[in-house]
Amino acid sequence: MVPHLITSLTGPINELEQRVLESMPAIERWFRLEWMEHTPPFYCSVDLRNAGFKLAPVDTNLFPNGFNNLTPQMLPLAVQAAMAAIEKICPEAKNLLLIPDSHTHNSFYLSSVQRLVDVFTQAGLNVRLGTLDAAVKQPQKVTLPEGGELLLEPLQRSRGRLGLKNFDPCTILLNDDLDGGVPKVLDGLYEQYLLPPLHAGWTLRRKSNHLRSYEELAKKFAKLLGMDPWLINPMYALCGDVDFDDSAGLDCVRSHVDTLLGKIKRKYKEYGINERPFVVVKPDAGSSGRGILTVRDAKELDAIGHATARAGSDMADMPPAGAVIIQEGVPTYERMNDAVAEPVVYMIDRYVVGGFYRVHAERGIDENLSAPGSAFVPLAFAESSQLPRRGERPGASAPNRFYMYGVIARLGMVAASYELEATDPEAEVYA
Amino acid sequence: MVPHLITSLTGPINELEQRVLESMPAIERWFRLEWMEHTPPFYCSVDLRNAGFKLAPVDTNLFPNGFNNLTPQMLPLAVQAAMAAIEKICPEAKNLLLIPDSHTHNSFYLSSVQRLVDVFTQAGLNVRLGTLDAAVKQPQKVTLPEGGELLLEPLQRSRGRLGLKNFDPCTILLNDDLDGGVPKVLDGLYEQYLLPPLHAGWTLRRKSNHLRSYEELAKKFAKLLGMDPWLINPMYALCGDVDFDDSAGLDCVRSHVDTLLGKIKRKYKEYGINERPFVVVKPDAGSSGRGILTVRDAKELDAIGHATARAGSDMADMPPAGAVIIQEGVPTYERMNDAVAEPVVYMIDRYVVGGFYRVHAERGIDENLSAPGSAFVPLAFAESSQLPRRGERPGASAPNRFYMYGVIARLGMVAASYELEATDPEAEVYA
Repeated sequence: MVPHLITSLTGPINELEQRVLESMPAIERWFRLEWMEHTPPFYCSVDLRNAGFKLAPVDTNLFPNGFNNLTPQMLPLAVQAAMAAIEKICPEAKNLLLIPDSHTHNSFYLSSVQRLVDVFTQAGLNVRLGTLDAAVKQPQKVTLPEGGELLLEPLQRSRGRLGLKNFDPCTILLNDDLDGGVPKVLDGLYEQYLLPPLHAGWTLRRKSNHLRSYEELAKKFAKLLGMDPWLINPMYALCGDVDFDDSAGLDCVRSHVDTLLGKIKRKYKEYGINERPFVVVKPDAGSSGRGILTVRDAKELDAIGHATARAGSDMADMPPAGAVIIQEGVPTYERMNDAVAEPVVYMIDRYVVGGFYRVHAERGIDENLSAPGSAFVPLAFAESSQLPRRGERPGASAPNRFYMYGVIARLGMVAASYELEATDPEAEVYA
Repeated sequence: MVPHLITSLTGPINELEQRVLESMPAIERWFRLEWMEHTPPFYCSVDLRNAGFKLAPVDTNLFPNGFNNLTPQMLPLAVQAAMAAIEKICPEAKNLLLIPDSHTHNSFYLSSVQRLVDVFTQAGLNVRLGTLDAAVKQPQKVTLPEGGELLLEPLQRSRGRLGLKNFDPCTILLNDDLDGGVPKVLDGLYEQYLLPPLHAGWTLRRKSNHLRSYEELAKKFAKLLGMDPWLINPMYALCGDVDFDDSAGLDCVRSHVDTLLGKIKRKYKEYGINERPFVVVKPDAGSSGRGILTVRDAKELDAIGHATARAGSDMADMPPAGAVIIQEGVPTYERMNDAVAEPVVYMIDRYVVGGFYRVHAERGIDENLSAPGSAFVPLAFAESSQLPRRGERPGASAPNRFYMYGVIARLGMVAASYELEATDPEAEVYA
């Protein structure tokens, strides 16, 4: 079950797929060497966009949810990867404290948390849930939609450690992206492993750092495969101080939008792509799908200063004041029953453990699909067909497509690893 | 799809299953701690016997074949485990030299070799096959039954290294159990990783060393679970110099058979098992299924000295001269369509990657099933149902049964690790 891809545009992506397959041992070795020098994030999910002519990660989530969307067939892979992850971090561990997102209460999210509990229990840990919600003073049962329940317990903080009543974990696994800031209770936990680290949260994280790392890696990787890095890397620029409300910093945005659109146009011409280029303007910080503008012409930004002109237009949802990213837009040309589809790949430790298609019936090919109304169709990554089949016609084989997705998603994961190293506030600097 | 188990005998095994499930995090941690101190064999398969009242490994194969019997669903797990294995041994490796068994030419075996090539290719290595058959001077194509072909190449030996023409591997993976001795070409490869090591081959390996390690581990493990180690450990004894042909050493065998049968009788009484005990007498060395005697009474051995009495009887196939093991017989009470079935579990590195049932329609519950005429039914280890489900009725759930099998098989693997450490001829001895 591979979503349909508009065939007229599959030329370059099929070439990429073929090159990725042919280079499989070299690619896997390349990843092995990267992981000798760098530490993979404990877990992550990467949203990809397949434009037919290029394939790129558009979001690398270090606090992934949606584990409930993986098919049961994928679970053994997740458990095996979790075992490998634990073994490296804290092999003697008995207990794992999992801290879910305290702002998300929908039942899909709770099912994802349940899935994580399952995975880490089966990997051999006693897993309990601690809540960041300070209002919770007593253990609280939450009923799951598919039956069963989760027990959320109040956190207990001592000097250097965090735990629950009668529960002292070796590792604390965070599933809250800290969009609202770092809770005091998580500060200064020097005696335990807090994963991902605090600076992976959106309080400190910036998309531009990730994009910089990804660009560097895309170039290295493209060199390995002897191809144009643009095929896997969306171009981008950064504007430091922008406030759309009072038109501050708009010149920077306008000029980068213009330059970027020009560059994309030249690339499209080079590859014979008959598309109208677009860029995406979005906040440098924050994980939400809001404040994202799709721009096809720098002139569209002129309306920005006029609240009345903005109302009801594409410009109604503007990035908040702060730094913004101007990024080459990558349309997604995968379709499932006529709805736009975007693959999402899940990783634990260095391993791809599954994935699914995010499908949104009401959104366009150039819009963000991570928004209310999206539906999920599990991708059969771990089925018999998962393993790539060399020798099959490019574009015709689901396993080969998925293998390519897994490779590009892992490239995003390596970039996250570089990014976290570069932004670690406690890293020692060797000059 | 779990083979039917004779229900009247499932009491103790259900209790074991329940205890194993309840102790899952403790068990997984126990394995983690073992692997902190010990190195798992690169790969292995373990034959188990489920008697309903006890469960035990009966063969730990360090040169496993039969990978072709694993279902395609299990392959991603095998690839992931292979990636973990390579990463630890030789992360910079580009090339893997696989040396198949030079004495086995049947097409099932070739399919197993093909499967290994697939797994390690997908894990990111260039895999080529070198043959120990010195008669092969030119690369030789071998056609596979399901289509495709393998290329067997002559080995090229230099001073400290082994390779093929234009192929210098970092790791050499041996799939020949060296039953016929260590070929000179494999001696003194100090610059490469030869896995498993030479002393894992049957030239040097002895079952008694393995059983000693397993017994030690079964005791530790049983203590962890608070149970009788006998439930997972067949008792055994060793006789050093036995030659059935001239009746040498028969007194030792007779006396151990007698003692062991008495011990088993007492255990059966303790657990209310209405069975006639039996022991198995087999050579201490060698991997073949031959030379195995099933004995229910020490008197049966009296016929041994008389060639005429032996002919046509159960005693026709005697162990060759040398040391013999006298081991508690574990009947297998699993049935598939009325044929006796025996689970076989496959592991790569520390991970269970799959398994299947070995079924033999013409053999009895107390006989060795690893013999011509056996059929294989893949165990659905990697299907959605693989992961254990806590809370299900013991004995009723295939995934729970399989989890228990995976645990006992891994216990056999840890024993192999102890065994290889204890018998390493190049180990430094710290007094």
